[in-house]
Formats: sequence, structure tokens, C-alpha cells
Amino acid sequence: MQAREMVEQYPAVTLDSDAFESGRLIADQRLAGLVVTDESGRPRYVLGSSQVVSFMVPTYVQADPALAGVINERLADEAAARLSGTPVRDVLPEAPAELAVVDADATVIELAAAMARTDRPLAAVVDGKDLLGVVTASRLLELAFTGERG
Amino acid sequence: MQAREMVEQYPAVTLDSDAFESGRLIADQRLAGLVVTDESGRPRYVLGSSQVVSFMVPTYVQADPALAGVINERLADEAAARLSGTPVRDVLPEAPAELAVVDADATVIELAAAMARTDRPLAAVVDGKDLLGVVTASRLLELAFTGERG
Repeated sequence: MQAREMVEQYPAVTLDSDAFESGRLIADQRLAGLVVTDESGRPRYVLGSSQVVSFMVPTYVQADPALAGVINERLADEAAARLSGTPVRDVLPEAPAELAVVDADATVIELAAAMARTDRPLAAVVDGKDLLGVVTASRLLELAFTGERG
Repeated sequence: MQAREMVEQYPAVTLDSDAFESGRLIADQRLAGLVVTDESGRPRYVLGSSQVVSFMVPTYVQADPALAGVINERLADEAAARLSGTPVRDVLPEAPAELAVVDADATVIELAAAMARTDRPLAAVVDGKDLLGVVTASRLLELAFTGERG
């Protein structure tokens, strides 16, 4: 089994996409994360869902998590809505993960090693310069542990 | 909205559970990760799917990812099956993530901050000493970005 046989189509957003719409995309489709491309469509970052969740966390709370407790419930409930109008580039985590990229002929182990090393539940699969799609950790586990291809 | 209203029931495995069966559990149910408890049922680790994927990666490949390329496709395809009979404690990542734990009255922001800080797509919700359940990043995003509770 090679990566080319495992790829899934996956929605991508750009650095200029609206952060609220991007969060809603992953929420609606219950995606494992988000692929962020640059203007030319080349993948730049792969964000896991825990990083997309961090879009909602104000900078001062990220610096001092204890401050999360001072935000009341009503304001917290509006945290997602307040992202409307903000581009993704402004809410990216400070050190977005290294992009996991594998070749089309990568094996299960090569894919697993790339995900383990970058600690992200997504890897991009390329054939030369072309992006074929992504493989999610869920898909890889399904193929490896159950043998199911659906 | 408080964490107690957001909890989901979630299957847990123990440190002594079979690593293959544990991987199949998350694969079958397409879970975001795995809760690992100790003998007394207390959650010890929360592993994201990229860490469960790493169960399949031999130690020498984790130390030197370039070695993933020397394992041929047929052997790689059998990586999951070879975990049968191995306990989860033997394939845990070297530095399993800090456990994200929040109180039952935690807000959306407190949950998001806990997931962002630990960089895991799951947080355990406790009421005093009792484990109420977990909240996944997917569920949190769904509630925060779409307002849907189903």
C-alpha cells in the first residue's frame, strides 16, 4: 500500500481566509485539521484541530492560561463569532508545525513516521511538485488496523 | 456553556490493553485519540491520533526517520498486525503529552486554552474527583462555530 492509494481530497484555506469561516469548515465536516496554502495554492501549514481551537484563545490567555478563568461564560461563548473578519494569518499558532510531506510511493511506515515526527494528524502527499491530496491519521489507522478502504 | 454540558462518553484503554486492539478501536470509531487509564480507571494519558499512529513506527525509525525508507511495502503493511500481543505501555510515545483536565464549570475559552496548551484534541472533564467524560476538539469546534449540540 502506497500513499498515492490512500490520499483523500481535503478542503484547504489560505492565509487570507476568514478565521471564522475556516473554523466553521472544520466544524461542519468534523475534519481532523486544516490545510493552509499560500497564494499559489502550495500547502504551507497543516494545523491539527487543537491548533484550530487555539484560534479562539486570546493572546493574553495563551501567554498566561490562568487568565482563561477571568473571561465570563457569555463572552467565552462568543469567542468563535468574534473571529469573523480576522484572517487566518493573524490567528496562526506562534510556531505552526512543520509540514508533513511524503512522496506518492511512501509506505504505511513512512506516513506514520512523518505524522509521529511532526505530531500532526495529517500528511500531504506529493508527486514531484504536484499535491495529490492528504492522508489523515484516521484514514491511515483505518487502512492499517482494519484493512478497510472505504 | 460549561464543560459539563459538552462532555461525550469516550472509550478508554488501560496501559495493559493490547496495542493492536486499541488501535483498531480508534480506527473503527474514527476517534480523535485515545484515553489511557491506570489500573484504578483514572485517566493517565490522552493520546492524539498522530501518537496512536506512532505505535506502528519501530523505535529505530523514530530515532532516525530516514530509516523508514528501508522497510519494504509488504512489511510496512503488516506494521499494525505486529502490535498484537504488545501492551499499550510498551508503545507509548516517549514523552506522552500532559493530560488536559478541566473542571465541570470550565468555559469554552478554558477548554480551548487547555487543548491549545497541551496540543491535544481531547480534554478530560472532572467534577471534584469524578471523571465526567471528555470533550474533543471536534465537538468544541462544532458547539462554538455552528452552535449545534448534536
